[in-house]
Amino acid sequence: MKKLLLAAAALPLLLSPANALQPPPQADPAATLRDQALSDNLAWDILEGLTTEVGPRQAGTEAEARARDWAVARLTALGFSNVRVEPFDMPVWVRGEERAEISAPFPQPLVVTALGNSGATPARGIEAEVIGFNSVAELEAAPDSAVRGKIVFINHAMAPTQDGSGYGQFGAPRRQGPTIASRKGAAAIVVRSIGTDFHRNPHTGNQSFAEGVRPIPAGALTVPDAEQLERILSRGQPVRMRLTLTPRNTGTHQSGNVVAEVPGSDPDAGVIVIGGHLDSWDMGTGAIDNAAGVAITTAAAHRIMQAGQPRRTIRVVLFGAEEVGGGGGPTHFRLHHPENNVVLVGESDFGADRVWRVEFNFGPGNAALSDRITALLAPLGIVRGADRAGAGADLGAWPRAGTAAVDLNQDGTRYFDYHHTPDDTLDKVDPVQLRQNVAAWTAVLAATANAPEAIEPAGTR
Amino acid sequence: MKKLLLAAAALPLLLSPANALQPPPQADPAATLRDQALSDNLAWDILEGLTTEVGPRQAGTEAEARARDWAVARLTALGFSNVRVEPFDMPVWVRGEERAEISAPFPQPLVVTALGNSGATPARGIEAEVIGFNSVAELEAAPDSAVRGKIVFINHAMAPTQDGSGYGQFGAPRRQGPTIASRKGAAAIVVRSIGTDFHRNPHTGNQSFAEGVRPIPAGALTVPDAEQLERILSRGQPVRMRLTLTPRNTGTHQSGNVVAEVPGSDPDAGVIVIGGHLDSWDMGTGAIDNAAGVAITTAAAHRIMQAGQPRRTIRVVLFGAEEVGGGGGPTHFRLHHPENNVVLVGESDFGADRVWRVEFNFGPGNAALSDRITALLAPLGIVRGADRAGAGADLGAWPRAGTAAVDLNQDGTRYFDYHHTPDDTLDKVDPVQLRQNVAAWTAVLAATANAPEAIEPAGTR
Repeated sequence: MKKLLLAAAALPLLLSPANALQPPPQADPAATLRDQALSDNLAWDILEGLTTEVGPRQAGTEAEARARDWAVARLTALGFSNVRVEPFDMPVWVRGEERAEISAPFPQPLVVTALGNSGATPARGIEAEVIGFNSVAELEAAPDSAVRGKIVFINHAMAPTQDGSGYGQFGAPRRQGPTIASRKGAAAIVVRSIGTDFHRNPHTGNQSFAEGVRPIPAGALTVPDAEQLERILSRGQPVRMRLTLTPRNTGTHQSGNVVAEVPGSDPDAGVIVIGGHLDSWDMGTGAIDNAAGVAITTAAAHRIMQAGQPRRTIRVVLFGAEEVGGGGGPTHFRLHHPENNVVLVGESDFGADRVWRVEFNFGPGNAALSDRITALLAPLGIVRGADRAGAGADLGAWPRAGTAAVDLNQDGTRYFDYHHTPDDTLDKVDPVQLRQNVAAWTAVLAATANAPEAIEPAGTR
Repeated sequence: MKKLLLAAAALPLLLSPANALQPPPQADPAATLRDQALSDNLAWDILEGLTTEVGPRQAGTEAEARARDWAVARLTALGFSNVRVEPFDMPVWVRGEERAEISAPFPQPLVVTALGNSGATPARGIEAEVIGFNSVAELEAAPDSAVRGKIVFINHAMAPTQDGSGYGQFGAPRRQGPTIASRKGAAAIVVRSIGTDFHRNPHTGNQSFAEGVRPIPAGALTVPDAEQLERILSRGQPVRMRLTLTPRNTGTHQSGNVVAEVPGSDPDAGVIVIGGHLDSWDMGTGAIDNAAGVAITTAAAHRIMQAGQPRRTIRVVLFGAEEVGGGGGPTHFRLHHPENNVVLVGESDFGADRVWRVEFNFGPGNAALSDRITALLAPLGIVRGADRAGAGADLGAWPRAGTAAVDLNQDGTRYFDYHHTPDDTLDKVDPVQLRQNVAAWTAVLAATANAPEAIEPAGTR
């Protein structure tokens, strides 16, 4: 009996063509869809189209509105159902003039950009002495009298990591620095860009002054400029900087999520929500952050649609305003969580380099499903991680409320070379790795949209 | 007898320490100096100092004057003799505001910088339709009526080469494009940067409108921006660009060469002239172009000086105004060629990546000397090339007039990633490869400054 079983198991391989690595004829349909997706061209087409025909699309601006129009037209043309916009209002902050220079002892220009919600200098700029710190903790520890009236500089030593974990720890100067510097009476703050490259392209990013704290001008120097300032400070002479940052708040404007669906055959089986965010920072064309996620999840959902009606409805959401605090995610949650029919969520928002890891936030009854997904992803070189999936910035509210989630973690080794810089452009995307992403999401959707078992809540943590 | 000779030849190896790769005790002093230079710190120190304490140093500006002061002080402190400035006057062109955007059909900003001697737009910019070409030849072939009043865009496909030869061929859009476009009545021209990187840092560079040709605004788009414009043009709709470039000519100002010497013991043996250029473009700190050449040649000459007085005088010249047409080289030639005592020249002006090739312009009587130099350089991984040495932009007049020359060609594979961009900063220099450069120049100087034979003219070609 054992021999017979072995023979039966071996049969597909024996009958398969000369190349024994070909899938056997009776392969899982999900595996077939996965492998077909390795030839996908739709994701590149969407990515190229959005970044070329819209370009930068800052949240709440007319550029983001053009991106919504573009996405609605494209998703409709692709045959998605219920294509619509979920609008919401938001305050908008926009960049102005941006200049920095060392005025003494070694006069020279530096390259700077404003951080989100930065305060403004007068049009002619400000000039003040620079005081440097190696960390937020050093700034915290400094007496207010040493900081008052000065331009604070905070350095750090962020290095690339595959899982992107450096962003949390080394992002502190951007997120906390401006508030602490303002509380201590600083005239302004410049931080070393929260990035891992050595190019003269500064990394912007959101920060919010704490309640009641006066907004001060807050900028990011490029990494080469931060290292230059560090060298200049190391000479021990007083260093003076002239800084001009003239961003402004333009009031309340509309943003919105673009939603599209592949209707399922079984309304009781629940809805799967995937997506990326449509907005980008203003300096690049938002190719890796996050036209890539828009393209990957749309292309994967489209492949499932083309293969025949799935059991579960797949909803693709292209979120608005992720970069500036995330108005789109909360709006979608507020509108749809009461319906109580979303069974699984997942967002792609970490570029387009290959997926290297899958993580789940599944209930105990779905262990077999997570095992099937893991097996489907293994041929793509994807390992199973031990952490619980969090579903990203826009969909994170769902697993926090108990909904099942899946994360496909992309390789982040070079992500923070380009993230939030003018350098986030189409040429940074590798089409081969982009296709692997589409294949991974196609496999996840194929397995979950057609899973015969219920997808149960994972429970709150 | 043969056996005895072999034994004698083997003796140094037998007596040497356990590591048989150690040089034998009676090694050529030039080889010893070469190997000691692999631990050099002076070149890095000069490079770091000049790029940090002066920073950008555009020819004819007060920044270049500060660089001369810095260099005179540094060379004097290092113990060089006859440290002096050779001043000359030059016209100065400086950058103004620089902005470009596609206004239709897909509004978005592009990153641009002015090319040297660019004409200016009005302060509010100009707006015109874009007409794209893939080469200067295509532009030449176009009827004037198709070009008149438009903004010309010229693309190209420059790729990295070790010997940098792509710069000549693919630099045509920058060097010839503006004049041709102006003659055809174009409103302005933008070229794809003459560079091999994919960053949003444009490559500037010199160009000169031909006699009698009206200067038009002439800029370089970054490579990602050029590719974006190419994609936008490929849609087939009329493309309109708004372009603002407001450079200006500031009149005649002073530049100068900084000269320093290691006096030789034999005035009749002639002078060896080496060096780099002190000026840089304005956007970066001129680390690879050309603080590196300044640092490498100064450090090599300093090593010879420290080892004892050489037979021949070594003159280090840090040229002014190389980037903008080369006022320093002709000035030095005009001042010193009549003396008729320069026997050998060589410039380092191609970054700081490793020297991979040596080439000579030697007279027939110096074949043995070139063989000795080749043998000295081989342990550094340097091959002998077949071309005649040209001695670079600043010293090229000398071999053209018959003087012997040596070229140490650096690996140019990544040179045009940074050249003439804001990205030409200290972090781009690899200290290990910088030291290999110092070792190579030290070897060349040791061999030539102390060569017992005459260094004869190579003759004119």
